[in-house]
Amino acid sequence: MATKHFYPAIDGLVDQALLGTAASNPGLALLRSEKVLYAKNHPRSQVSVICGGGSGHEPAHAGFVGEGMLAAAVCGDVFASPSAKQVQKGCMTVPSDQGYILIVTNYTGDMLHFGLACEKMKAEGYKVGVVKAADDVAVGRKNGGMVGRRGLAGTIILDKILGSMASADCSFDEIMTLGTAVGVSLVTISAGLDHCHVPGRTTAYGAIEGDTLEIGMGIHNEPGVRTVTPIPPIDDLIAELLQYLIDPNDADRAYVPFQKTDEIVVLINNLGGVSTLELRAATQATIAGLKTIHGIVPSRVVAGTFMTSLNAPAFAITLLNITHAARESGVDASQILEYFDAPTDALSWPKTAPYSADAAEEEAIEDESEKSFAEDITVNPATLERKLRKACENIIEIEPKLTEWDTEMGDGDCGETIKAGAVALLDLLDSGLAKTGSILRVVDAMVDITEDHMGGTLGAVFGIFFAALMSALVAAAGKPDAPIEQVLATATAEALASLRTHTPAKEGDRTVMDVMIPFSAAFDGGNVEKAAKAAKEAAEGTMKLMPKLGRATYVGGLAGRDLLPPDPGAWGVHELIQGLAE
Amino acid sequence: MATKHFYPAIDGLVDQALLGTAASNPGLALLRSEKVLYAKNHPRSQVSVICGGGSGHEPAHAGFVGEGMLAAAVCGDVFASPSAKQVQKGCMTVPSDQGYILIVTNYTGDMLHFGLACEKMKAEGYKVGVVKAADDVAVGRKNGGMVGRRGLAGTIILDKILGSMASADCSFDEIMTLGTAVGVSLVTISAGLDHCHVPGRTTAYGAIEGDTLEIGMGIHNEPGVRTVTPIPPIDDLIAELLQYLIDPNDADRAYVPFQKTDEIVVLINNLGGVSTLELRAATQATIAGLKTIHGIVPSRVVAGTFMTSLNAPAFAITLLNITHAARESGVDASQILEYFDAPTDALSWPKTAPYSADAAEEEAIEDESEKSFAEDITVNPATLERKLRKACENIIEIEPKLTEWDTEMGDGDCGETIKAGAVALLDLLDSGLAKTGSILRVVDAMVDITEDHMGGTLGAVFGIFFAALMSALVAAAGKPDAPIEQVLATATAEALASLRTHTPAKEGDRTVMDVMIPFSAAFDGGNVEKAAKAAKEAAEGTMKLMPKLGRATYVGGLAGRDLLPPDPGAWGVHELIQGLAE
Repeated sequence: MATKHFYPAIDGLVDQALLGTAASNPGLALLRSEKVLYAKNHPRSQVSVICGGGSGHEPAHAGFVGEGMLAAAVCGDVFASPSAKQVQKGCMTVPSDQGYILIVTNYTGDMLHFGLACEKMKAEGYKVGVVKAADDVAVGRKNGGMVGRRGLAGTIILDKILGSMASADCSFDEIMTLGTAVGVSLVTISAGLDHCHVPGRTTAYGAIEGDTLEIGMGIHNEPGVRTVTPIPPIDDLIAELLQYLIDPNDADRAYVPFQKTDEIVVLINNLGGVSTLELRAATQATIAGLKTIHGIVPSRVVAGTFMTSLNAPAFAITLLNITHAARESGVDASQILEYFDAPTDALSWPKTAPYSADAAEEEAIEDESEKSFAEDITVNPATLERKLRKACENIIEIEPKLTEWDTEMGDGDCGETIKAGAVALLDLLDSGLAKTGSILRVVDAMVDITEDHMGGTLGAVFGIFFAALMSALVAAAGKPDAPIEQVLATATAEALASLRTHTPAKEGDRTVMDVMIPFSAAFDGGNVEKAAKAAKEAAEGTMKLMPKLGRATYVGGLAGRDLLPPDPGAWGVHELIQGLAE
Repeated sequence: MATKHFYPAIDGLVDQALLGTAASNPGLALLRSEKVLYAKNHPRSQVSVICGGGSGHEPAHAGFVGEGMLAAAVCGDVFASPSAKQVQKGCMTVPSDQGYILIVTNYTGDMLHFGLACEKMKAEGYKVGVVKAADDVAVGRKNGGMVGRRGLAGTIILDKILGSMASADCSFDEIMTLGTAVGVSLVTISAGLDHCHVPGRTTAYGAIEGDTLEIGMGIHNEPGVRTVTPIPPIDDLIAELLQYLIDPNDADRAYVPFQKTDEIVVLINNLGGVSTLELRAATQATIAGLKTIHGIVPSRVVAGTFMTSLNAPAFAITLLNITHAARESGVDASQILEYFDAPTDALSWPKTAPYSADAAEEEAIEDESEKSFAEDITVNPATLERKLRKACENIIEIEPKLTEWDTEMGDGDCGETIKAGAVALLDLLDSGLAKTGSILRVVDAMVDITEDHMGGTLGAVFGIFFAALMSALVAAAGKPDAPIEQVLATATAEALASLRTHTPAKEGDRTVMDVMIPFSAAFDGGNVEKAAKAAKEAAEGTMKLMPKLGRATYVGGLAGRDLLPPDPGAWGVHELIQGLAE
């Protein structure tokens, strides 16, 4: 269990978090003395829908205050109900001529304190109603019958639909009716890898040890209804969770009936500590399980952090059967979905949209990359063939040395990587790559070779260089006839400039750049012999350089040595150049 | 470090997570073979802004694909760059006549693979640009100079602003210019309590043990630049983080200049495992530190989960200096803020709104609860006084017994709780509560007494009953004169019905309801003697009941006993009734 926190205790933590929430929405204000976050401009002409409960479940409920959702959230201390006085004062922050509807999670403390506030306000002449959130299915009728089902993430769906209705000027009675119907159309079950730890508390909360998870845990570290060892494959877990939610033959549960044709909302709730990667994957597993096992295709899928147990590594699946709620309330299912989807400026309610199974299907894409060299740059085919083969042979010959040097200074794969490129080029030459004398064909082939046969950092660096060289040559191909050496020199300089936008390496860093930069500079006038000479000197010069980039950076014990092996990458480039220059 | 996962390994996890993301936005589609999530209807007439990188940082970047933000996200495996081929195919999912802008985090692998894709596409004739995300300030110029600053959560701000621009039909050059300017106006620093664990990996990632946190950690478990022991108070931590971000005298950093009058965006990023409670509190601490230490009041504050390191218990502060970006680009600051705020259907970008320091200030609220009894129900003051005193005395006398019984069956506080109410009522009687003979005044006082002097479950239950009784009596007060006993009997029945909507307790559950329900039933005709007799019998009857609710439920060893002590709450109610009935 993660017991480390940025805050050593919960003192003042809720206040600060509420201020931090108000900071992101100027429509919110905080009645600090009562821990009430409320919408500043809630119109008196609309019903005030209010929720609340203990803290430690953020973003519930403060994150759901805003136009189109809650008028106010009344917050207790961590895992403790607010008092009736807080609830009453909370209602007074959002005065309404239409009445107040309290969404209350079905825990004894919340029910009694909100209930007391409700009755006191009624005694004072206000119109107040309570909609109970009791979506849990972990506890069956037999064991939980007395206290009933707990309020879990389904509460947030009530927050949304009832808040939407108030914003749409629905009446108190309309909201109470649909609220009650939605309340009995919700089911939720959770699965957790561990419990959470409350800052500053020394109490042990029964960490879940070993290869075990718990099904049906609550949001205050209440133990689940069943532990499973070892942790099952995700599809098996989802199948079991869905059974708790849906199974019509589970006489102890089956709280809400589900038909294949019903409109269903799926809400996947992160209890706080699950990575978004795993949460989104579990979302997909839930959709797949619903379809495969129960033949249900949902109408909406929302996943995120709604009602947490601090940072517990757990998630929950909530299903709302909209069709059932429609039947219970007499409100059209499409109208309920409209309330669900209506915009809100509440910070933590996500964007929602219809689910479509097609959306996630792979779509074919056209390959737009067909090549054609409208203009080409050609040289004598035999010369081209000879130079390229010589360059390849140079590299293959020197490979054992490159490997030796790289083994001392790096991870030893440099020689093999460069050799693989040379071998691939020889193969293409055997297949007639150079027979038309087209430089563009060769450079284009080099780009593919670097990606398909070399890979790694060195492959990418060469790839970028050759691709950029290709761009420069294609641009030059359309221009009036300059000497070929000049064209190549200019294109080399341009390609190098492009390469340098993608890598920070510069001269002196003991990389291939130590040869490429001086080579390109010397090639400037189109004199390839001079450039090849510069490349040779530069390659030899790497023996005096200390590594600054890449793995060689971390090799210790170099201090005090006058000469190191040459940089193998730089040397490989030099060998290539010598071959081409001959 | 939390090493337990719902998924035992990362195989297939990224695919599933992308499908799970597409499930919430029908505008998205997945090119599964290349792990590219893209906007299906991206118009060719707009620049395609694309981001990507290794996975494990969700919601980055798939969660930021959608109208008004990214055209596509190209995803690698966990903590590994996608290949250039993936990037190219990603671009082809969102063909554009205006060009492609790649937002690339400044890591060697990402820079080279996206760079290669960029150069290859350019060679094929496409217009492609790279905007580098390098907002990290953990590594100073001296140590990080070569590779430069890493790309952290500031990347998401680039995603947003550049995506907004594309949607607003800005040209390729306009987006490149502002993108580059925003890129050099971002700073980010993180603080973490621990590293994260990658599903299925056995590699140790150097857990941060003990009372220590790390500053400047990366998003792939790279160690931070400094560890701090013990974990400092949050305000000290924030002060240090802000110093890394802002300090103009830090010659090794000071990457972006900040003036008090600059328009600043604050983004607080959860690296995955911080509770929303602590994250929102840390957000407030950041706002306070900015103001107090640096005199900066931000223009926008956003907090949430943007770019994670799986579920690392860490957060980061990102600052964007909009004024600086405006200066660097020539674009108005207000225009940049418009791009920042523009709507998007990307799932994981939050609602943004201007920050106002006032928003978080407590606002005075009118107390609308002034009481006035336009109509009253009165009885003979002396009789009222006598009955109430007798009820109180009964309770005070029986208290030791109640405590004894509750100590055996519950947590022992029942007697004291009820006595506290009686003592408080006597005090009010001493102050003349009953002197007008107003029943409403007394019942109203009882509501306050239960809340202020009793508390707990029992106080709430009594409070709800008396508040509901008050409502019923106020309603009755306006009606033509019925016999007072009948009015009280009817009101009692109504109040009890209200109470039963807030608690599941019923007759036989060994609670106060075991007396209140039969009492109310017997009182129905207005015969108080008969009702008091029923209450007495019912109180005695609790000796035969096994507990079903509350703490007494969990007390073992009750089986086989014929008689238990009476339920102390029920007995207290009976004593109260006997006093009133006399």
